[in-house]
Amino acid sequence: MGVFPFFLRLWPPGIPAEFSISGTRPARFSLVWPNGSGTSSKEDKVHTYPECIPCILRASLTAGRLSGKGEEELWSALQEAAQVCAAWEREKPPIALGAEVAAVLKRKLGQGDPFWKAKKEGNAAVLRLYPALKERVRSSEDPLFEALRLSAAGNALDLGVHPEVHAEEALSLALRQPLGRWDYELFQKHLKEAESVLYLADNAGEIVVDRILIEELLALGKRVTLAVRGGPILNDVTLADLAEVGIPREVEIISTGSDLPGVFLPLSSADFLARFHRAELILSKGMGNFEGLHGERGPIFFLFQAKCYPVAQEAGVKVGSLVLLGPRG
Amino acid sequence: MGVFPFFLRLWPPGIPAEFSISGTRPARFSLVWPNGSGTSSKEDKVHTYPECIPCILRASLTAGRLSGKGEEELWSALQEAAQVCAAWEREKPPIALGAEVAAVLKRKLGQGDPFWKAKKEGNAAVLRLYPALKERVRSSEDPLFEALRLSAAGNALDLGVHPEVHAEEALSLALRQPLGRWDYELFQKHLKEAESVLYLADNAGEIVVDRILIEELLALGKRVTLAVRGGPILNDVTLADLAEVGIPREVEIISTGSDLPGVFLPLSSADFLARFHRAELILSKGMGNFEGLHGERGPIFFLFQAKCYPVAQEAGVKVGSLVLLGPRG
Repeated sequence: MGVFPFFLRLWPPGIPAEFSISGTRPARFSLVWPNGSGTSSKEDKVHTYPECIPCILRASLTAGRLSGKGEEELWSALQEAAQVCAAWEREKPPIALGAEVAAVLKRKLGQGDPFWKAKKEGNAAVLRLYPALKERVRSSEDPLFEALRLSAAGNALDLGVHPEVHAEEALSLALRQPLGRWDYELFQKHLKEAESVLYLADNAGEIVVDRILIEELLALGKRVTLAVRGGPILNDVTLADLAEVGIPREVEIISTGSDLPGVFLPLSSADFLARFHRAELILSKGMGNFEGLHGERGPIFFLFQAKCYPVAQEAGVKVGSLVLLGPRG
Repeated sequence: MGVFPFFLRLWPPGIPAEFSISGTRPARFSLVWPNGSGTSSKEDKVHTYPECIPCILRASLTAGRLSGKGEEELWSALQEAAQVCAAWEREKPPIALGAEVAAVLKRKLGQGDPFWKAKKEGNAAVLRLYPALKERVRSSEDPLFEALRLSAAGNALDLGVHPEVHAEEALSLALRQPLGRWDYELFQKHLKEAESVLYLADNAGEIVVDRILIEELLALGKRVTLAVRGGPILNDVTLADLAEVGIPREVEIISTGSDLPGVFLPLSSADFLARFHRAELILSKGMGNFEGLHGERGPIFFLFQAKCYPVAQEAGVKVGSLVLLGPRG
């Protein structure tokens, strides 16, 4: 029996008790997955893998431990979460399983933000690296390419998955990973034709390397809108976490309208959906956003590190790869 | 969302369909935990922690992937395993949860030994290190102490937990861990008074460093009986895995009579129980045996690395520590 490193996919807790969504969908999330959502083509949707079950439960535990709750409450929450997993239909996306488990945890363990301190520390740690990283991009042959690659590598900064991520080591390791699929020319083509970019953020810490990519986009004369999570979930970045990150003033900041750990249109706010559907170009950071949005039509580029088997499978790359995945056809 | 290392406790699959046990206990394991077993004091028993749930499920998945079964069978097995976790009573030991989940996996995924190849490779890898390790012990100031420490560090060689354990690195890392509790003088005292030692083995690979400790015990004039698992479970060592390990001929090899990943008296064979209860000194290797035997009366010394939070808590040490834990009082 033993210890040690292994790849896992972290997950969420936290789904809003109530939120508004547009169209014919219900105004309250019933914990019943809507089959055949109006906005989604079902092709290429990430389904739930066996790996997602222990991963989501492990992440629940991380959040539960950070919440400071007692053993009995934690045990009870984990058991109810396991029950949800036991009854889950694997055709549904793992992010929806995360949403259901998150609802259980919120009810059992309360509404707080257990990752608050870790996010603050994560941001501070990457901010210390900012000058060197900025210089790395600035002095590279192709600053846009390098900013994209750095931003993908920044997806390794996932405090939820590994409670002791050392920013410098994690970034350095991720930058040594291969480019598993890298639709750079396609991205350049789309970017050239777009006046604005909708940038979907992922984690705290990582947001500092996103800042460098955003600064490159601004330097290329693009307007940038940055969408952060609508509420605390793991170490995902929210409005409250942005204070010291130094996002340029000209960037408009909006909320996805949900506290899922990835944009997932059936659970996004009407405001966000409107922005999403009229975006000229969407840059979607991280595995959570990929899980939620893969298969959606539109000018979406996914930028992430494929850190778990399910996501690597869906992206058609090896685990660990850096990915820039553009729209097909 | 992200990847990466984190501590987890691996678990089992495989419970014998039928087995004999002595005394008043039932001859068939009913998958109902017997409250207040005749042989056990309930004090100090390791109960199931929230951590055990994702860990057992993750281990199920590792075994399931190695079994080569399809996605649907794996998914179905994981869901049923999650169902078992959801209904589990935490007062029971995690090894009993492992037993129930193992029964599910065997029924769903078949009876094979998915870790067979990994065990063979693990043994070969540590055998290549044997000359250097043997020399390390031989040339040390206190060979018994060093052999015990090396054997505890060998508990890091857990292919079930991390599918790509590199023997040399894992051993080297484990040897840098602190001695969390190390009842060495007490062990020396017990050893002096004993003519024979019952050595409870744990994993393949690790068994090669156990061999070095066993050789030290033989050199001190002790008779040694080595107990291996009664059937394949994770990368735990069985009779079938011993062929090339070079266990000295004078060592008697017996079976625990069960394919649990740890000795657990309520599920051990009558033969093993008889040997266990008349042993002068028992050296119990690994976390699984600690889980199953902690709290049992008798001249037991537990030797392991505390690789997960639950076991570290029960042993009163920090995660990662090397432990030699003797009987109290």
